[in-house]
Amino acid sequence: MKKFNAEKETKNIIRFIRHYYKKNNLIGAILGISGGKDSAVVAALMTKALGKENVIGVTLPCHSKSEDKNDAKLISDYYQFKLQNVDLTNVFDTFKEEITTLGDFKDGEFKNSDINLKPRLRMATVYYLAALYSAVMGKTYLVVGTSNKCELYVGYFTKGGDSVHDIAPIADYTVEEVIKIGEYLKVPGKVLYKKPSDGLSNQIDEEKLGIKYSEIEAYLEKDKNLDGEIAQRIEKLHHNNLHKFNIPTYRRKESI
Amino acid sequence: MKKFNAEKETKNIIRFIRHYYKKNNLIGAILGISGGKDSAVVAALMTKALGKENVIGVTLPCHSKSEDKNDAKLISDYYQFKLQNVDLTNVFDTFKEEITTLGDFKDGEFKNSDINLKPRLRMATVYYLAALYSAVMGKTYLVVGTSNKCELYVGYFTKGGDSVHDIAPIADYTVEEVIKIGEYLKVPGKVLYKKPSDGLSNQIDEEKLGIKYSEIEAYLEKDKNLDGEIAQRIEKLHHNNLHKFNIPTYRRKESI
Repeated sequence: MKKFNAEKETKNIIRFIRHYYKKNNLIGAILGISGGKDSAVVAALMTKALGKENVIGVTLPCHSKSEDKNDAKLISDYYQFKLQNVDLTNVFDTFKEEITTLGDFKDGEFKNSDINLKPRLRMATVYYLAALYSAVMGKTYLVVGTSNKCELYVGYFTKGGDSVHDIAPIADYTVEEVIKIGEYLKVPGKVLYKKPSDGLSNQIDEEKLGIKYSEIEAYLEKDKNLDGEIAQRIEKLHHNNLHKFNIPTYRRKESI
Repeated sequence: MKKFNAEKETKNIIRFIRHYYKKNNLIGAILGISGGKDSAVVAALMTKALGKENVIGVTLPCHSKSEDKNDAKLISDYYQFKLQNVDLTNVFDTFKEEITTLGDFKDGEFKNSDINLKPRLRMATVYYLAALYSAVMGKTYLVVGTSNKCELYVGYFTKGGDSVHDIAPIADYTVEEVIKIGEYLKVPGKVLYKKPSDGLSNQIDEEKLGIKYSEIEAYLEKDKNLDGEIAQRIEKLHHNNLHKFNIPTYRRKESI
């Protein structure tokens, strides 16, 4: 990776967050804590920027491993922000019951639907809590995004799920840079160096993508040593996922 | 309103839809049918563009009036597309049960949370079905958006709810223009001329917004006779809702 000044970047991000909150008269931040590095680093940034009393983390298990919840607790204990738990397993199951009334489908046909339902239910829950705590406090809580630059470039997120948020502190930093910021903020190593996984597909991200994050980073840094086939694969993923960012919209030639 | 050629506009929209589907090798369209004019007009456009056999409408009641479901049936009968029903009442209630475990909140504090949860659950459901039917057919179904230009300008939609979709056929048309398109497509008058309501807040849209759609239209057409105070109010709503379109994102000065 290129030279990276983690202290400078961290301070710039914190300044950006504080400035946006002050300008818009906001108070708090709420975010899902997955037990992975991105949400841990973002939670650390938000507590530094706003004070630990204004940050709420949420664990959102949905037929999930309890290990992830323990790692989320490790992070909230370390940075001393409030951690709420909303178990979405029953909500998911109730939803599935309604779907079975629609007709006969084969088991395999549900795979993509089920995988992407979870992040969408999580998004709905985090927004629910943000509006609830905003009502309680009489001042607005924002939902904080945790996507990094590598994931965003290849579209590795769920439209209408983790892509929906109100502020994006680490969207301009690659995976390796986010780790550097995490090291500067002393994010516990157990979480910071864990292999990224979506917790949905039983695969680690890099297996699922068929590309290493270090390769996406090399691509973004225009590293000439990167294998041409890998570069092509990254570009294809990027292209195929552009629709997640720009909704094709019919517009008249002469619009009023 | 300005001169408007409904036939020409309708044909252009249909051409746009067909072109996008062909270019991307897509097959079907799925959308929530609320019983209001926007989803009726969009469903009519999609059946004309793709054929009725490739359009699936969904009613998504959630503690809702059965009247809306009847009007949805009227539309699907008229245009002869398949109509599915997924009742989200139990899902909503199961979700609320989980939330009550978090602590004591006052009834009034849930108001905004509850109102916006419904369109988010609906979005998750429509995407669930889109992926399911895509798996069944081996070709992609898109989720179709039904927002019009007036609603979009003042941000009258739920972030992470009805704003999440894959193609937007009427986003460039005002309420009155959508009605003209609906008249050209012979959308049943009971639905086409119904007073728009979100079905969430027990208020019609214009009461809730404090502005008439005809006033937003006059504003967008730069009608000089529009009351200055109303213009200011529209501009304020527009400004306050810009964050729904552009997520504030920290970016480095020198990005890799």
